[in-house]
Amino acid sequence: MALLGDKEFFKGIGEIKYEGHESDNPLAFKYYNPEQMIAGKTMRDHFKFAMAYWHTLCGTGGDPFGPGTKKFPWITAKDPIEAARDKADAAFEFVTKMGFGYYCFHDFDLVDEATTLVESEKRVLKTVEYLQEKQKASGVKLLWGTANCFSNPKYMNGAASNPDFNVLAIAGAQVKIALDATIALGGENYVFWGGREGYMSLLNTDMKLEQDNIGRFLNMAKDYARSQGFEGTFFIEPKPMEPTKHQYDFDAATSIKSIREYGLENDFKLNIEVNHATLAQHTFQHELQVAANAGMLGSIDANRGDYQNGWDTDQFPNNVTETAEAMLVLLRSGGLQGGGINFDAKTRRNSTDLEDIFLAHIGGADTFARALLVADAIIRKSPYERLLNERYASFQSGIGADFVSGRLSLTDLSDYAVSHDNPDQISGKQEMFENLLNQYI
Amino acid sequence: MALLGDKEFFKGIGEIKYEGHESDNPLAFKYYNPEQMIAGKTMRDHFKFAMAYWHTLCGTGGDPFGPGTKKFPWITAKDPIEAARDKADAAFEFVTKMGFGYYCFHDFDLVDEATTLVESEKRVLKTVEYLQEKQKASGVKLLWGTANCFSNPKYMNGAASNPDFNVLAIAGAQVKIALDATIALGGENYVFWGGREGYMSLLNTDMKLEQDNIGRFLNMAKDYARSQGFEGTFFIEPKPMEPTKHQYDFDAATSIKSIREYGLENDFKLNIEVNHATLAQHTFQHELQVAANAGMLGSIDANRGDYQNGWDTDQFPNNVTETAEAMLVLLRSGGLQGGGINFDAKTRRNSTDLEDIFLAHIGGADTFARALLVADAIIRKSPYERLLNERYASFQSGIGADFVSGRLSLTDLSDYAVSHDNPDQISGKQEMFENLLNQYI
Amino acid sequence: MALLGDKEFFKGIGEIKYEGHESDNPLAFKYYNPEQMIAGKTMRDHFKFAMAYWHTLCGTGGDPFGPGTKKFPWITAKDPIEAARDKADAAFEFVTKMGFGYYCFHDFDLVDEATTLVESEKRVLKTVEYLQEKQKASGVKLLWGTANCFSNPKYMNGAASNPDFNVLAIAGAQVKIALDATIALGGENYVFWGGREGYMSLLNTDMKLEQDNIGRFLNMAKDYARSQGFEGTFFIEPKPMEPTKHQYDFDAATSIKSIREYGLENDFKLNIEVNHATLAQHTFQHELQVAANAGMLGSIDANRGDYQNGWDTDQFPNNVTETAEAMLVLLRSGGLQGGGINFDAKTRRNSTDLEDIFLAHIGGADTFARALLVADAIIRKSPYERLLNERYASFQSGIGADFVSGRLSLTDLSDYAVSHDNPDQISGKQEMFENLLNQYI
Amino acid sequence: MALLGDKEFFKGIGEIKYEGHESDNPLAFKYYNPEQMIAGKTMRDHFKFAMAYWHTLCGTGGDPFGPGTKKFPWITAKDPIEAARDKADAAFEFVTKMGFGYYCFHDFDLVDEATTLVESEKRVLKTVEYLQEKQKASGVKLLWGTANCFSNPKYMNGAASNPDFNVLAIAGAQVKIALDATIALGGENYVFWGGREGYMSLLNTDMKLEQDNIGRFLNMAKDYARSQGFEGTFFIEPKPMEPTKHQYDFDAATSIKSIREYGLENDFKLNIEVNHATLAQHTFQHELQVAANAGMLGSIDANRGDYQNGWDTDQFPNNVTETAEAMLVLLRSGGLQGGGINFDAKTRRNSTDLEDIFLAHIGGADTFARALLVADAIIRKSPYERLLNERYASFQSGIGADFVSGRLSLTDLSDYAVSHDNPDQISGKQEMFENLLNQYI
Repeated sequence: MALLGDKEFFKGIGEIKYEGHESDNPLAFKYYNPEQMIAGKTMRDHFKFAMAYWHTLCGTGGDPFGPGTKKFPWITAKDPIEAARDKADAAFEFVTKMGFGYYCFHDFDLVDEATTLVESEKRVLKTVEYLQEKQKASGVKLLWGTANCFSNPKYMNGAASNPDFNVLAIAGAQVKIALDATIALGGENYVFWGGREGYMSLLNTDMKLEQDNIGRFLNMAKDYARSQGFEGTFFIEPKPMEPTKHQYDFDAATSIKSIREYGLENDFKLNIEVNHATLAQHTFQHELQVAANAGMLGSIDANRGDYQNGWDTDQFPNNVTETAEAMLVLLRSGGLQGGGINFDAKTRRNSTDLEDIFLAHIGGADTFARALLVADAIIRKSPYERLLNERYASFQSGIGADFVSGRLSLTDLSDYAVSHDNPDQISGKQEMFENLLNQYI
Repeated sequence: MALLGDKEFFKGIGEIKYEGHESDNPLAFKYYNPEQMIAGKTMRDHFKFAMAYWHTLCGTGGDPFGPGTKKFPWITAKDPIEAARDKADAAFEFVTKMGFGYYCFHDFDLVDEATTLVESEKRVLKTVEYLQEKQKASGVKLLWGTANCFSNPKYMNGAASNPDFNVLAIAGAQVKIALDATIALGGENYVFWGGREGYMSLLNTDMKLEQDNIGRFLNMAKDYARSQGFEGTFFIEPKPMEPTKHQYDFDAATSIKSIREYGLENDFKLNIEVNHATLAQHTFQHELQVAANAGMLGSIDANRGDYQNGWDTDQFPNNVTETAEAMLVLLRSGGLQGGGINFDAKTRRNSTDLEDIFLAHIGGADTFARALLVADAIIRKSPYERLLNERYASFQSGIGADFVSGRLSLTDLSDYAVSHDNPDQISGKQEMFENLLNQYI
Repeated sequence: MALLGDKEFFKGIGEIKYEGHESDNPLAFKYYNPEQMIAGKTMRDHFKFAMAYWHTLCGTGGDPFGPGTKKFPWITAKDPIEAARDKADAAFEFVTKMGFGYYCFHDFDLVDEATTLVESEKRVLKTVEYLQEKQKASGVKLLWGTANCFSNPKYMNGAASNPDFNVLAIAGAQVKIALDATIALGGENYVFWGGREGYMSLLNTDMKLEQDNIGRFLNMAKDYARSQGFEGTFFIEPKPMEPTKHQYDFDAATSIKSIREYGLENDFKLNIEVNHATLAQHTFQHELQVAANAGMLGSIDANRGDYQNGWDTDQFPNNVTETAEAMLVLLRSGGLQGGGINFDAKTRRNSTDLEDIFLAHIGGADTFARALLVADAIIRKSPYERLLNERYASFQSGIGADFVSGRLSLTDLSDYAVSHDNPDQISGKQEMFENLLNQYI
Repeated sequence: MALLGDKEFFKGIGEIKYEGHESDNPLAFKYYNPEQMIAGKTMRDHFKFAMAYWHTLCGTGGDPFGPGTKKFPWITAKDPIEAARDKADAAFEFVTKMGFGYYCFHDFDLVDEATTLVESEKRVLKTVEYLQEKQKASGVKLLWGTANCFSNPKYMNGAASNPDFNVLAIAGAQVKIALDATIALGGENYVFWGGREGYMSLLNTDMKLEQDNIGRFLNMAKDYARSQGFEGTFFIEPKPMEPTKHQYDFDAATSIKSIREYGLENDFKLNIEVNHATLAQHTFQHELQVAANAGMLGSIDANRGDYQNGWDTDQFPNNVTETAEAMLVLLRSGGLQGGGINFDAKTRRNSTDLEDIFLAHIGGADTFARALLVADAIIRKSPYERLLNERYASFQSGIGADFVSGRLSLTDLSDYAVSHDNPDQISGKQEMFENLLNQYI
């Protein structure tokens, strides 16, 4: 395990296995088999499972009602660079042991922010050098990078949407550093999540100016990255609220509207998070479908919310039925465009064993893997596709096809309808479709 | 009262008065004064208060757990045309007595649907003739018309989004009739509310085809109406869900996205309903602002939901604080574009006195009137506008203005920020803004 | 099939089979095997699956935005008694074909209400006679009866909570008829669901008097039924809202509080409905556990809601993961006390084939059956029980046991703690428990 | 201002005035007039406005997405006792300047917790001594004290509900210290808020044992406090969720059920928080009414939530309409029993001026004051009480009164109903009641 880094932090954890679902070993994947072919690609390639630096390595369990609970052995050094290297060691050890190929980060997950931009950039650069070595040694890659422009009190009124230009400029400098780091690490994508881009109260807010400023800002960031040779995809990650009362990238549809308003549709796609979908009163699969319909299904942040709690609980996925419906959308849409499946999920505040991190990721990956197997079987073996086609068959020929190709007027519709105004009643057969799904779980 | 029609149905109701808020008369407006000038227009012109045919004249109080409770004296005739005339008499009597200038309808609010399109069209035409007479005699106008393409069991799988072309064609025929009626009555606008345009289950749904079909359908309807001389505005009325699990026109942002995708942005604006806003997890004022930012704040359906209930309760507005925040957006955006304020609200199922209809409309109109007075005073007398301007002052000159005019790159932002990375902390002062609002209520 | 009644309504439906999960037959149960023993009882006895008269035979698909869509062949006769007999024939044909043993009803599901109490009672009596014959011939039994005291406009302000004594008295008469019918049919239980027992507005409501009146009313009903020899259990069915803004029996805890306040704890238990649980922001399993803790887990209304919709969608259960968690509570609590599993669920408005009713019930029953198998396996084969015991082991001996037995004071706790104030950190291991559940699905 | 303490922290803030609503002074109360008599008591006595130590002095604005933003000048000293004294100086300066008479605290709001119970107790004792002096000098009193048994990582699995007896014992020791402090400071009440008393997952939880343990714990605490001479009231503060998935004291009804199960009904009442009410899907006034009906309306935590956000936003109250409905319940129930109105509210994270704390409390107090004036006027001047009485008049004499006094059986109801089964339809007149409320705002 010399490849993993200078320090090994997860020594006590047993070996992770891929054993199929008969095993009782809690550290074994039952369904995730990286080499298994599904619809022409390996599971590994479908998913590109990634570890989220923030939750897995930085999140010690604090919540609004209490501080962190978790004692991470990689968070001990006083020196920021040494601490960053320890964290990187833990990161690559974890990703490698899990057999995942990717990680994702915010700039100041990697290394603690300094008090000046100049010093912060120096720290990021030094950390990036270390990560480059680790990537080379391990083969682990960067799925995407991003800048945390929401935690620092400077951003309390927003970053690109801040009413004060000065703060917006600082956000620009920070995004530049994060873009440079992402490019230096061969990051495949870059994400914007507008944690404070929204409002706490509409009363003191000029929504139009703020949104236009975000549009300008994103264009500047895109132009800069392209000028530096970045060829990956930019993702907007929708979320409806929290920490703001209202976040501008409310959901997939709202974000697509903005992407087009800003003229960013050739460079930007969406990163859909499960818990953000449900906070916006959508299912996960709905958001995937909306993104896919616009050709913008880029990446996924895998987690889940709690249907009885109204905040971002970021739990690990565990509901096969729901994930199977999502994987059906994913497979039928041709998969993710550029991105992968990042576990933007955290173990519960009271899950304090180091082992819990492994158990959680194994459970999450297995949920997706099993769901993909289910979706694949439904598509290949069941009458699903045929039934769906039959439902819309009237648009595939005759006057229905004329309608689709734009050859009819309202008067044509009316003329036709007058002599066909007693149509057959055709059941939607929702229960049959639901049963069919369950038969393959 | 000869003008009102052949029959008088609200005889027992006392005279409606405009008395100012000292009166104890429950049938008196305390704040709504049609002739009062606010921001250069009369209250009447700001609001164009309209009666909703469906709730006020047709809604007898049925809900999923019981049938109607209200005995409307205008719903007695067996003959559909006679019944339609009685209803029209009640409509014009009510609107005239209330001092409102407008009404709104769905096609089959006016007269019962027949079993064939041909016969239904005949009924509508006959009713329209009668309404033309009533309009002429009373001066009452049609704010907007629409077609009910959601109640008939034919539409159980959708209208323009139906998987069966046949049903789509019938919807086309019905919309044609409703457009003809609206034009014949000098309707100032025409509304599309997609009650069944959405899905019950994503499993059996081709969302992309359904949405594209809606786009084609709306274009056909628009082209037809324009060819018949209609010069008013078309409105999309967003709603997130109910009766479907998910309605395609989820909220203002989603609907604007669709309007643009369909190429309808020159003809369509939005009709924002309060209760639909809150069902979509937005405030009413948020939805108004989103519409206004896109130049699409067309009209309002006034009502309210219940924050503890998750369905469309369509109650009459009664919260001055919230409505004042909405009127602030309305006034600052330059008012409604083409539309008015339609009371898409119903008295409770157990509010069974005829008088209750009057009390409810008086309460609702007074809530809006009072809110408009509050908003106007805040704009004219308080430091509100100045405070808001100051908050965004950094974008009005210097480098901030350069940013707004697109003259900066990300590198420029970064260069500036490096020497300005310790900005002043500027309080958002939300509580002060809220206090300011309350001082004017 | 002569046993089933005079008329056969589901002729076109194929034979229902019990084939295990390899079959592709959509009319086959994959998991529900009535004779299979689980934890000492057959599946049939665990579940006592029941058909709900109202949804399955009376619910033609109307919703607030449109009338019914379903053409039930048993709803054709003009004569109320003939119609009631047809409905009974359909009921027993369906229950028998499904292999379920039970049905449930509201009084006026059985036969249409008349305009007077006297006439209504006559109709119910005649229908009961017919049902007695059908029960005898088929072996099908009545799981519970209830009175519909919420649909009739008379109850628009409540039944037992009505501000008018006169209406309360009518509700009393109606409940008496329903109790008589239930007793005559050997009903094993009797349910109270307070559909209108709550308020639309607190402003016009004397909550205390209304709740006290309900308490008096329930006692009278209980005393009457006992005097007539009824030995079954009474159930309160909690629901938080809808149709009222607030329903008094909000959830399990609130209902238990009321049952005790009224002194009904020896005769009443709870009927827990899935969708009502989730509308009250609880999981289904939470409500089961609360009821079980009070010794009041009586019966279940099986269905599900939609997590993105805020009303009672009453869909058929289809989520195995969630149902398995519920069955774990059920098995560990010793099962249902007196009641069974009633499919208080309806096919979607656009599921209009008669076959859909069968598919829906098969899917629902299979979801419960599979979930019971999962829960049973977890209890018998997994380390679940041991892990749970270990978590609470400190209360089973030593000072922890002293605490449980009430032998300690606050000072004792404090004295102990002072010398033990650095306890081990013990992970809650939620993710491990969740993985464990998933391994058995 | 020598009375206020050694240090003055709010020097820059202008003088708070009581000027009536014509003033433009943002630091003036417009409605709160401490000496004004309402229903036989001064406003001061009705409200007993209290400052919450935690939000106002300790809450620097951290949220799950970023650390604190607010630079409080009283949080600078390294020495915990000196820091505690600075905080106390700030507390009494603020309360005195605001003209409020009360404060509330958690134990470790007062002074930072130490690493051992013994040392923590010493710190609390020293701080209490200082607070005693400040109270004596200023006349400010302690409305209630409480122990924070939810922030320390030790409590991550619960305090009195912890699966480990050791942690439960530590909670006992901590509550003992907090009780001692409250008694020493003449605290009028003592509060239990079970922040971690609930579960994160039902899968790993023995709910029954946990709840029974809480019951034992509360009895021990009560017995201890009574043995030390405490004569005040204990309050349970309901909250449905957050930080746990499910909190055992879900709402008022659930808490009353528990209080009675534990046999605590002679000593415990409820502390109702607005935001907790709305998180539980109740209105504030509903929770007040439920508490009042049980004789348990003890105290209020004044704040508000955001109807579009699903977590505890703890904003300052600003909606007069809603607060007026609550004050109507309060006045009609005879006011608070023992408690007062504690501003458990925080300025927004981006409200960073010291002045904002004053503006927020002034706005909140004025909202309550204005609402009380409205409610009082409705009771005294409007027909409200008469209308409500008339609605329930049928229970005040004749057979209705017989029913109330328990002299009727179900058969009596039935006999009466048979000859009275066509009752008058009586409108609930909700809209009229709502208009009436609005006329007094």
